[in-house]
Amino acid sequence: MKTSKILLFTKQLLSIKTIIIVLLFSASAKAQIQKVEPPFWYAGMKNPEVQIMFYGKNIAQYEASVSNNVVIKNVEKTENPNYLFVTIDTQNLKASELVFSFKTKNKVAFTQKYSLKERRANSAERKSYDASDMMYLIMPDRFANGNPKNDSDATLTEKGNRQDPSGRHGGDIEGIIKNLDYISSLGATTIWSTPLCEDNDKQHSYHTYGQSDVYKIDPRYGTNDDYARLSAEMHKKDMKLVMDYVTNHWGITHWMIKDLPTKSWINQFENYTQTHHRREVITDIHASKLDQEVCVDGWFVPSMPDLNLRNPLVAKYLTQNAIWWIEFANLDGFRVDTYNYSDAAAMANWAKAITNEYPNFNIVGEIWMHNQANLAYWQKDSKIGAIENYNSNLPSVMDFTLQSQVTSAFNEDEPSWDNGLIKFYNNFAMDYLYPNTNNILVFTENHDTDRMNDKFKYDFSKYKLAMTLLATVRGIPQLYYGSEIGMGGDKSKGDADIRQDFPGGWAGDKNNALTAAGRTPEQAKYFDFTAKLFNWRKSNEAVHFGKMTHYIPENNTYVYFRYTDAKTVMVVFNNNAKEQVVKTNRFKENIKNFKSGKDVLTGKTFDLATEISLEPKSAIVLELE
Amino acid sequence: MKTSKILLFTKQLLSIKTIIIVLLFSASAKAQIQKVEPPFWYAGMKNPEVQIMFYGKNIAQYEASVSNNVVIKNVEKTENPNYLFVTIDTQNLKASELVFSFKTKNKVAFTQKYSLKERRANSAERKSYDASDMMYLIMPDRFANGNPKNDSDATLTEKGNRQDPSGRHGGDIEGIIKNLDYISSLGATTIWSTPLCEDNDKQHSYHTYGQSDVYKIDPRYGTNDDYARLSAEMHKKDMKLVMDYVTNHWGITHWMIKDLPTKSWINQFENYTQTHHRREVITDIHASKLDQEVCVDGWFVPSMPDLNLRNPLVAKYLTQNAIWWIEFANLDGFRVDTYNYSDAAAMANWAKAITNEYPNFNIVGEIWMHNQANLAYWQKDSKIGAIENYNSNLPSVMDFTLQSQVTSAFNEDEPSWDNGLIKFYNNFAMDYLYPNTNNILVFTENHDTDRMNDKFKYDFSKYKLAMTLLATVRGIPQLYYGSEIGMGGDKSKGDADIRQDFPGGWAGDKNNALTAAGRTPEQAKYFDFTAKLFNWRKSNEAVHFGKMTHYIPENNTYVYFRYTDAKTVMVVFNNNAKEQVVKTNRFKENIKNFKSGKDVLTGKTFDLATEISLEPKSAIVLELE
Repeated sequence: MKTSKILLFTKQLLSIKTIIIVLLFSASAKAQIQKVEPPFWYAGMKNPEVQIMFYGKNIAQYEASVSNNVVIKNVEKTENPNYLFVTIDTQNLKASELVFSFKTKNKVAFTQKYSLKERRANSAERKSYDASDMMYLIMPDRFANGNPKNDSDATLTEKGNRQDPSGRHGGDIEGIIKNLDYISSLGATTIWSTPLCEDNDKQHSYHTYGQSDVYKIDPRYGTNDDYARLSAEMHKKDMKLVMDYVTNHWGITHWMIKDLPTKSWINQFENYTQTHHRREVITDIHASKLDQEVCVDGWFVPSMPDLNLRNPLVAKYLTQNAIWWIEFANLDGFRVDTYNYSDAAAMANWAKAITNEYPNFNIVGEIWMHNQANLAYWQKDSKIGAIENYNSNLPSVMDFTLQSQVTSAFNEDEPSWDNGLIKFYNNFAMDYLYPNTNNILVFTENHDTDRMNDKFKYDFSKYKLAMTLLATVRGIPQLYYGSEIGMGGDKSKGDADIRQDFPGGWAGDKNNALTAAGRTPEQAKYFDFTAKLFNWRKSNEAVHFGKMTHYIPENNTYVYFRYTDAKTVMVVFNNNAKEQVVKTNRFKENIKNFKSGKDVLTGKTFDLATEISLEPKSAIVLELE
Repeated sequence: MKTSKILLFTKQLLSIKTIIIVLLFSASAKAQIQKVEPPFWYAGMKNPEVQIMFYGKNIAQYEASVSNNVVIKNVEKTENPNYLFVTIDTQNLKASELVFSFKTKNKVAFTQKYSLKERRANSAERKSYDASDMMYLIMPDRFANGNPKNDSDATLTEKGNRQDPSGRHGGDIEGIIKNLDYISSLGATTIWSTPLCEDNDKQHSYHTYGQSDVYKIDPRYGTNDDYARLSAEMHKKDMKLVMDYVTNHWGITHWMIKDLPTKSWINQFENYTQTHHRREVITDIHASKLDQEVCVDGWFVPSMPDLNLRNPLVAKYLTQNAIWWIEFANLDGFRVDTYNYSDAAAMANWAKAITNEYPNFNIVGEIWMHNQANLAYWQKDSKIGAIENYNSNLPSVMDFTLQSQVTSAFNEDEPSWDNGLIKFYNNFAMDYLYPNTNNILVFTENHDTDRMNDKFKYDFSKYKLAMTLLATVRGIPQLYYGSEIGMGGDKSKGDADIRQDFPGGWAGDKNNALTAAGRTPEQAKYFDFTAKLFNWRKSNEAVHFGKMTHYIPENNTYVYFRYTDAKTVMVVFNNNAKEQVVKTNRFKENIKNFKSGKDVLTGKTFDLATEISLEPKSAIVLELE
């Protein structure tokens, strides 16, 4: 009995041991896969291949297979055994649940479900933003705090602190959703929000350009579903959502940076090497290889590891991530950060892959250059780019040459040969360099520049001039949140000064500029003008896609026309601090048989027979009759 | 007898009458043709057709024919009966004397001899100036008075008056010929002289851009043969002569302007209309037709009628005139004035016609623009031009973007992000836009700009920096007479201030800077440096046609290399007012295995192992060893 008991005990022990081993193995199997990215994919993509990254301890030692007779096209491993990159072919697959099996010694060690989801109807043919839109740029942390409960998050280092100008203030996706009517009432049709994915930096995470997880909305902004809901709510209002995508760098706290798939996932130097920011070297035929390398591979700041898009795994990761967000959040476009700080050839492929999937999808790249040729180089099908056999495939660029001159020009009451309104004339005179002038983003400021109201010393007449320019020249106008109620900001005081909270975005704000009732008379003055201008713009095709003819500025006045066969708009600026008379006979090419024009801003009618008298520092926008 | 005597007398009278009539007729015939242009032509041109303009009272009523079985291809008449344009075909004709007959009522009314001359051997294949040359720019009235007897001319209005800063000072072709050794000793290999054809304006004719006869050297400069002699003397010294050609306008006193062949020979407006000088309109896709028309067709000044090159007769006239001078004076190249003030398509044809005849012939156009794209547009085979389906056929343009920044950059001892040496870096970084960077004229100043010595406040160290730049960057260096001995001039004081007489060019000048013995120590300092630099340059192929690699300026220093497989030149600028150390490891791409470099200016050897120390405001030009 004692013996048998012992044997039984031994058997039980073995059995228990077996169970324990099995349990241990299962536990180990579950732990094995810590991340799968993209977390799911879509059936029916034009490019049927998707490269799925499995991350888990020593996962590279397993052999992957997949259910449903799905073909594995390729498996890639890196020097880090915790990564496995499996490319499958989804051709002809319907939306379905796949199962990946990971074998070792011919036995399935563990499995992983993987969803192929169904795409929305006409997903590939989605429209995007264009020159008929007005884009409203928001820094979400600084716009409106719709959900005060998520200002801090247990999993993230930086906690909400509105007292710190450079801290997390609590603005979020809910804040945007709650104020869509405000944004729409301004005449905006599109929102570009600065990045919303998780940024776990210990400070300055509010700008969110140092992302730590690019498949996850930062919990302090909301959830992935909140972001999709923002998009859905906007679409109900016929508005468009533009994501701010960052290809150049991640944050130092990104989970993959902590366990790099491969050394070459990021650009590394013997010692910390910062970009020199002189992006002229990229196209320069005389540049040294060193200067070119440091420009593109040097880091933006020590907290933002520079992604190496020359590594095909990185390029693929970023391409799929971008497409995933388009599908998941039903996006209407991208704005891409620090565009030409990344390898130019890789970026061309990235843009190509996205626009191959979505032929109408607009992407505007932040090419912060100060010469039109250097900007035009980067626009899709550029003949400047073609000089170096380069085609960026990037549909849209930003008109930084215009932006950099707006405040100085309108501040120059008595221009010389090179000053004042001629700056605008000279800017548009270079449009011959661009392959598509309608797809240039025009703006007077953004989250990285001085705010114009500050530079204008809060002179409302200059604001009106700048907004009139923005609303009527070729391209897609972009307005930076808050300027429409007279907000200012001086970059020389630090970035926080140009990224202040929108008054009324926080419960308890004494001043609530988000409602008509809450606005001060001064704010109302700014808002009403802006809303009138951009709401008028919504329905005027001539200023969207019409031709432009402009005339050399004379006597500190500037006249241009936007016109289609059906409609002609005449815009006249008087940049003088005194009244100015403009003779109309110079403009007969465009005035043709029109007799008069009605100013869309004041409703006043101007006779075009001989001359127009303009008030000091004013502009009129005439619909010709 | 009386009767017979009377009869005889009558016969004699008739005879005398006949003689008188014949004599009268001959006199009339002789008077009939007052001008023939081109006055002669050359056999064996690639384009066998020449359009000969006959000018004389009512000449259009005659029918022209020509001897030697020469074919008349075309006869053109204008609304002015005093002109007849006869195009003949010289194919297969040897040098010969032709005779044109002018008939009326089937009788030859008068005849005109016309020479087809023999071309020089290899005339078509003549070499031209290029980046191996150094071009010395002379205003002949202000350089040297070689023949005081021709300072005034009976046939011309403005008389010599050296006391008038804007008057005729007497400099002439003989003055240039006499000083060729001086010019050559400076290291110059090419002379560009401002125009020398007759300019009969009553004042300011010294600049000679308002020409009154483009087939005739102004007698105050010498004769056509003197000009050909200058060319011949220069060729003996292996130097090259560049003519300053003006296509855009003539002087108001030009004989043809006084009796226009046709109203459309020049651009005419209801009221005097001046160009607005904003040549950006030419390429501007938004420009009004009016602004474009006024730019190109508007006059430069009231005394310079604007030639209408869209009129094929005018275009042909200017083309043949240019070719005639090449053949007659055995020219080595052109500089063309106010290039893009003329019709762009017509100028492209003009340049094409010339370079068709002389495939190696260099022509540099004065495209005074301030954006590299706008300059590159105008260079032959430009891909910028191709954007607008334009090919200028103009081989060379002037680097005005560089020129406009030379004095400011070297005056900026403590540069900011945009100041100092980075201006040069940024300029050359745009070279990708040019189809041929070796064929860009580089210059620090010319007869229309401030003189740098004035802007440098006669700081010799800055002059040396500027000359070192000029001598070592890509392109053809051009030096403006007199700066090499420290001459200054301030354009804000008027053009005369930047066009002062070269000291020593006039008999009796107390200071004679044309000879070593006559130079002041200060002048000698400037001259010796310049001569050393440009004489060194003569034989260094790396700075002629070598590749260029430059490095982003750091600490107000700028380093670039010019190199061929055989030779490497390293140029280092220190723009600081204090000594500066430059670490060499950044430049290893170009330093390669070279150990040291010998400064061509001081002979000093610099070790390249770790660092180079530069004196304040200095540059070194190292031949690497």
